[in-house]
Amino acid sequence: MIVKDLGITGRDHIVFIHTSEIGMADEESGFVRIRSAKGYAGAKAISTEMLVKPGEIGMPKHLLEYLNVADGDQVNIQPGSRPAGYQAIRKKYHGLKWTKEDIQTILEQINNRMLSDLEIASFALAQQFRTLDLDEIEHLSRGIAFYGETLEFDEPVFDKHSIGGLPGNKVSLVIVPIIAAMGLLIPKTSSRAITSPSGTADTMEVLAPVSFSAEEILEIAPKTRGMIVWGGTMDLVPVDDMIIERAERPLSLDPPSLIVSSILSKKISMSVKNLVLDMPVGKGTKVEKKSDAFELANIFVEIGRRVGIRVECALTYGNQPLGHAIGPALEAKEAILTLMGKGPTSVREKSEELAGILLELGGLAQKGRGVNLAEEVLQNGKAWEKFKEIIAAQGGNPELKIDELPLGQYTADIEAPRDGYIVEISNRAVKLLARTLGAPSAKGAGIYLHHKIGDFVRKGETLATFYAEREGPLDEALKLVHSRKFYTLEGMVLDRVSR
Amino acid sequence: MIVKDLGITGRDHIVFIHTSEIGMADEESGFVRIRSAKGYAGAKAISTEMLVKPGEIGMPKHLLEYLNVADGDQVNIQPGSRPAGYQAIRKKYHGLKWTKEDIQTILEQINNRMLSDLEIASFALAQQFRTLDLDEIEHLSRGIAFYGETLEFDEPVFDKHSIGGLPGNKVSLVIVPIIAAMGLLIPKTSSRAITSPSGTADTMEVLAPVSFSAEEILEIAPKTRGMIVWGGTMDLVPVDDMIIERAERPLSLDPPSLIVSSILSKKISMSVKNLVLDMPVGKGTKVEKKSDAFELANIFVEIGRRVGIRVECALTYGNQPLGHAIGPALEAKEAILTLMGKGPTSVREKSEELAGILLELGGLAQKGRGVNLAEEVLQNGKAWEKFKEIIAAQGGNPELKIDELPLGQYTADIEAPRDGYIVEISNRAVKLLARTLGAPSAKGAGIYLHHKIGDFVRKGETLATFYAEREGPLDEALKLVHSRKFYTLEGMVLDRVSR
Repeated sequence: MIVKDLGITGRDHIVFIHTSEIGMADEESGFVRIRSAKGYAGAKAISTEMLVKPGEIGMPKHLLEYLNVADGDQVNIQPGSRPAGYQAIRKKYHGLKWTKEDIQTILEQINNRMLSDLEIASFALAQQFRTLDLDEIEHLSRGIAFYGETLEFDEPVFDKHSIGGLPGNKVSLVIVPIIAAMGLLIPKTSSRAITSPSGTADTMEVLAPVSFSAEEILEIAPKTRGMIVWGGTMDLVPVDDMIIERAERPLSLDPPSLIVSSILSKKISMSVKNLVLDMPVGKGTKVEKKSDAFELANIFVEIGRRVGIRVECALTYGNQPLGHAIGPALEAKEAILTLMGKGPTSVREKSEELAGILLELGGLAQKGRGVNLAEEVLQNGKAWEKFKEIIAAQGGNPELKIDELPLGQYTADIEAPRDGYIVEISNRAVKLLARTLGAPSAKGAGIYLHHKIGDFVRKGETLATFYAEREGPLDEALKLVHSRKFYTLEGMVLDRVSR
Repeated sequence: MIVKDLGITGRDHIVFIHTSEIGMADEESGFVRIRSAKGYAGAKAISTEMLVKPGEIGMPKHLLEYLNVADGDQVNIQPGSRPAGYQAIRKKYHGLKWTKEDIQTILEQINNRMLSDLEIASFALAQQFRTLDLDEIEHLSRGIAFYGETLEFDEPVFDKHSIGGLPGNKVSLVIVPIIAAMGLLIPKTSSRAITSPSGTADTMEVLAPVSFSAEEILEIAPKTRGMIVWGGTMDLVPVDDMIIERAERPLSLDPPSLIVSSILSKKISMSVKNLVLDMPVGKGTKVEKKSDAFELANIFVEIGRRVGIRVECALTYGNQPLGHAIGPALEAKEAILTLMGKGPTSVREKSEELAGILLELGGLAQKGRGVNLAEEVLQNGKAWEKFKEIIAAQGGNPELKIDELPLGQYTADIEAPRDGYIVEISNRAVKLLARTLGAPSAKGAGIYLHHKIGDFVRKGETLATFYAEREGPLDEALKLVHSRKFYTLEGMVLDRVSR
């Protein structure tokens, strides 16, 4: 059939064929298999009397690219019979264990675009309903790492990762320079925010470019000892990306086996050998209960051992945002202040603790003494020097002035509605409000929290300041703020006794 | 936004918006909510630079119809925030029980087109992974029946239903006339084949029209006492149709709770009070193990009791196709032969047994004696007379000659590859081959089995005859027949002892 570009820009796995030819699609799944000189892909066939003529097949841009074809090219179409990967997924319907081969088949067919969105969703849901065992998670982690790029370094790689969910968690920008300053190799790849106001890559991007090829990282990192880059440029784990994009995100799913394999597969691809894992535990974070966090931590440690990564998990306080700043530019500023010795205690201490663990794993400090070494490297300015070196190496301006960071011009103060102690700051509300303000795509958007849990505030005192780059999002956030439990004050009106 | 008809004829729940406006869709699910004067619907937003301009929204025909809008009309778009129905579905991720209200919310939002395909799939998969209890299945059955048409009759309605999976199961065409001849009311609605070579509606359609409105059925059935119609015309259970179409069929899923609620909701809508349920048990049918069949039967009986339907389940032999004929015209012919007293024993006996149960439920025979009454009505020709009356009432020709039924002109005999006893005939292979030959859409296509399990055949003897209406499908089926275990012969070569 003749390919037709329909200008479809999303990642939807659909193609368009003429209504008279819809019989070509598999009766049950509605899938067709498209073969080009480059390879093949499967997609759901949409029938239309208008967008294509008989003999034409309309395709989204990502499939044109994947199949390496363009408007007017020829491809072959076969009905997409039920793929072997889905047969393997179905074993879980009967409570069976997935073998290594099952998992390889499933992942291969996800990579080859042979599974439908519904089939990939059933793969993720199977893991939500039937907890995978350690063997299965091991095969999954190795299997996901098998596809995409792998970077090999001549020395052990160190890394820090957060399982996520805590707004304001900018500690990577502090930890990487500490570790690199001590000579260990820490080429940190990080993600952009999916549902949070700022991923580490978003925050770093305020200060320097974050998109690098594997070759560039292999060249730069051994010199600077540290980098903070966006993992997406390298296509490290394309299968993981597809599972997230096509199933986990649309269904807000995150089963433990996919949390573990998603993170560890990336670490395998980056040849990480020593990993400290930050697990914020608190309301509105990824893991809300400490017992769940312990369970997950044990899986991380054991799977890490099996795939050759020394993992140490740190369960951290996550009942309110970390530090005061939420949003790319605000967080970059707070991270720099911390590196300059002027940051909030919570950010500084958490950075030192996590960096300390890595220094211990690297043999630079005795067990329990790493935190002191980290503190020293922060205080003597070496970490800040190293960070400027990293910014320069990544193409940013190391002579930046923190007051010149581009904060949103549209601001509003949120005032305390009455006197009282702050007893809660909702992570969920903070994330929602910061995103409504425009973060992370609007780099200057975000929230500055003037007060944290435990503070006593007077009525009318400023609790937080909103930053936006446009007026619309600011209005939107101000509309939302009253219906969400952003701050909760314990009204201590003990002196008003009625007669 | 301005509506644009893109000529999309399938049932896909997608709309097209310009790439520059994709921010309107929900970030996680990619859903938008479209509001017209008539109501609203949700759909996955596909971004395109080509098919629509900014300010336009492209829609498939079924959504235009549902929203009662046409090309050029105006609709409002809101981002589709996570619907309450999916929040209820998610409770199953944590092993919780669905309340009546949960199930009502889910079904209402399926009916309102507010859930995505992935969300509906997670609803079906939740039931695959976590068996629902009787309360949940009851709410599901009643809830599904709540939407769509309901037919009320002035007298108790009798019905026969097969849970499916057995090729050649044409007994409804024999049972309905027996019951109607005895004066009981049996307005049987049946489905077209989904994955089988011929549904009851497909087979009946060879002899008479099967599409009737609720009003027509309410008028005709009380006079003839029996009808055999296609349930699809009436839109009896639209929510069930959507669950099948959007989740169960594409994932080949059929959890027990959906088997039960799908069947009993239709019976509730048809005001059925007495139901005999045919449950073929055997390799390649819907229920392969007798213990599973018993379990399912008990659920049917109990849920039936709760919703006011007396259900009697009959576990029937299902290890090979029933009778000799598979495919619409071939099956219609075999059913008529049975009514004329010239059919195969297996078809006649099964029809008598099941009809006998209904006659007992109707108080026309004592427990255990219904089968004799059914046999009598078959033998004395009253059932055959009644069937001709039903054919005439439905607008068919009662003077039909069975030799004039339109069998496919392209035929081929399948010969025994050697001497031996037939030990297996694969239901799966028969279904696949008959569908490959063109059944059910090609009414004359199908398979005639000259020999059944237990027969001894000589090499070269005809095992089966293939019928097709075109040469292509016949060739296709002949290519397939050797790779599938259609017939299995036990080669009894006991006399060849080597020296």
